[in-house]
Amino acid sequence: MEITKLQLEKVQEHVRPYIHRTPVLKSRLLNEITGAELWFKCENFQKMGAFKMRGAANAILNLSEEKRNKGVVTHSSGNFAQALSLAAKSLKVPAYIVMPETAPEVKKAAVRTYGGQITECPATLKDREETASQIQQQTGATFIHPSNDLDVILGQGTAAMELLQDHPDLDYVITPVGGGGLIAGSALAVKYFSGECKCIGAEPLEADDAWRSLKSGKIETNESANTIADGLKTNLGDINFPIIRENVERIIRVSEDEIKSALRLIWERMKIIVEPSSAVALAAVIREKETFKNKKTGIIISGGNVDLSKLPF
Amino acid sequence: MEITKLQLEKVQEHVRPYIHRTPVLKSRLLNEITGAELWFKCENFQKMGAFKMRGAANAILNLSEEKRNKGVVTHSSGNFAQALSLAAKSLKVPAYIVMPETAPEVKKAAVRTYGGQITECPATLKDREETASQIQQQTGATFIHPSNDLDVILGQGTAAMELLQDHPDLDYVITPVGGGGLIAGSALAVKYFSGECKCIGAEPLEADDAWRSLKSGKIETNESANTIADGLKTNLGDINFPIIRENVERIIRVSEDEIKSALRLIWERMKIIVEPSSAVALAAVIREKETFKNKKTGIIISGGNVDLSKLPF
Repeated sequence: MEITKLQLEKVQEHVRPYIHRTPVLKSRLLNEITGAELWFKCENFQKMGAFKMRGAANAILNLSEEKRNKGVVTHSSGNFAQALSLAAKSLKVPAYIVMPETAPEVKKAAVRTYGGQITECPATLKDREETASQIQQQTGATFIHPSNDLDVILGQGTAAMELLQDHPDLDYVITPVGGGGLIAGSALAVKYFSGECKCIGAEPLEADDAWRSLKSGKIETNESANTIADGLKTNLGDINFPIIRENVERIIRVSEDEIKSALRLIWERMKIIVEPSSAVALAAVIREKETFKNKKTGIIISGGNVDLSKLPF
Repeated sequence: MEITKLQLEKVQEHVRPYIHRTPVLKSRLLNEITGAELWFKCENFQKMGAFKMRGAANAILNLSEEKRNKGVVTHSSGNFAQALSLAAKSLKVPAYIVMPETAPEVKKAAVRTYGGQITECPATLKDREETASQIQQQTGATFIHPSNDLDVILGQGTAAMELLQDHPDLDYVITPVGGGGLIAGSALAVKYFSGECKCIGAEPLEADDAWRSLKSGKIETNESANTIADGLKTNLGDINFPIIRENVERIIRVSEDEIKSALRLIWERMKIIVEPSSAVALAAVIREKETFKNKKTGIIISGGNVDLSKLPF
């Protein structure tokens, strides 16, 4: 299915009342260090602390009145659980969240704060899918996938749209790559709302499924995923992969040390709190200095939800 | 000596090219938690990471050409050492910084980055003063005190001036109280650039010298100062104390637990990195909820230079 520019513009209009238009920051010190001209789109300041709010809002907005009344369901232990809960609350829709029993209490508490109704299950993908499926049957709720859903993808694309509206002359937009929703949406935004700008993905070497998927032409998985960027362990899906394959220039892989070092730079120099996943994009710029030298480069800071008790510093 | 409104306006004009006009942030979540309407003046985003840049720039700008050529000297192991170094560098003035041998290497490195010339000395106040005095004699450099200097005080006041220009209808401006430069400058800004706004100080119970000084009418010192807010251990001086006594409504004292809890709230909810000293002001608002209920309250976030390896979380 071909996405149109008009479609993206309508998505931006739809989600506008439910999200923050986040600020775009620059840092002279990071420009000096990287040699690039960087613009940071700060989705760590987004509602519930991550870009996922955009996709969740758009997905619910696209449901019929009847479906909305029956609610939405997802399985997630991360930002999407919070995002769907908060978006559903804003739209007065019930949200059923399947979480593994092993999920940290702080994450369950956050979902509850946003009004999500939690069902716990054993910590396997099979159990999570089955539990979500049972809830669907019992309640008639609609299942919303965190990244492999076209409405979610288009919602996530609005961050890059805003960035390009603020800075139409970017040479590159870089995003971290996890389940593929953010990079796919961003790549569509770059395609329709820029001139010569290219969309590049950034991925941990320890979870480089997207890099391998682009190489092999089919969706690859991670055998293990021993990365600090815990939001980037998931695989691409059949809806976002074709969009990524067609519209993403390439993917740059970075080591764990490079991620930690970039994370510390952002915290120390910019004085903002970002997730390790967000630092992966800056790490890519530092790794490939020559590529980005003097280039206007937009970086999507994906989120800022970190456990302050467990920092890598 | 009576300060005039015009004088403060001129200071703002003078320092403008050497500082950032920092953003003023709000947080719906913190408003909900406190019941107040809070506006955070983010000096953690200031050049070198703290409001001290303002006073340092103003102090150097007020020196004659001849004095500037001979340089400036201070003794400090904290933000003012960095501020004076960077301000001096911007104005092409030599900066001599006396630091205790025991100062962390990371702080010495920061001063060097900004071009300050470090002289190390034993870690007593007497040694620091003597060493600075020797440098004065050898070089003809002018000694600039970090907080008890009128030009420094007026420079620090420009943060509250900007805040009141952005939000003229504030009921309160709260700042942390350390050596007294920030609170004295802020109180003058409130006096001249607001209607009914009041300036309130916030201080750790563990270093409540300013609270005791206002009570006794003379400058008190701290016997010990066992506080996480390491920027607030110093005492008031004979230049800032009269300004504080005349223009500060009162000082609210907070416990170490209250400071840590407020610090965590700012980090987790606002996703910005601030020093423990900055959290003291929010802690005061939380401690005296009834005072600030529904009140438009400006908080000066003093800085964001923290050692990420030594967090209290």
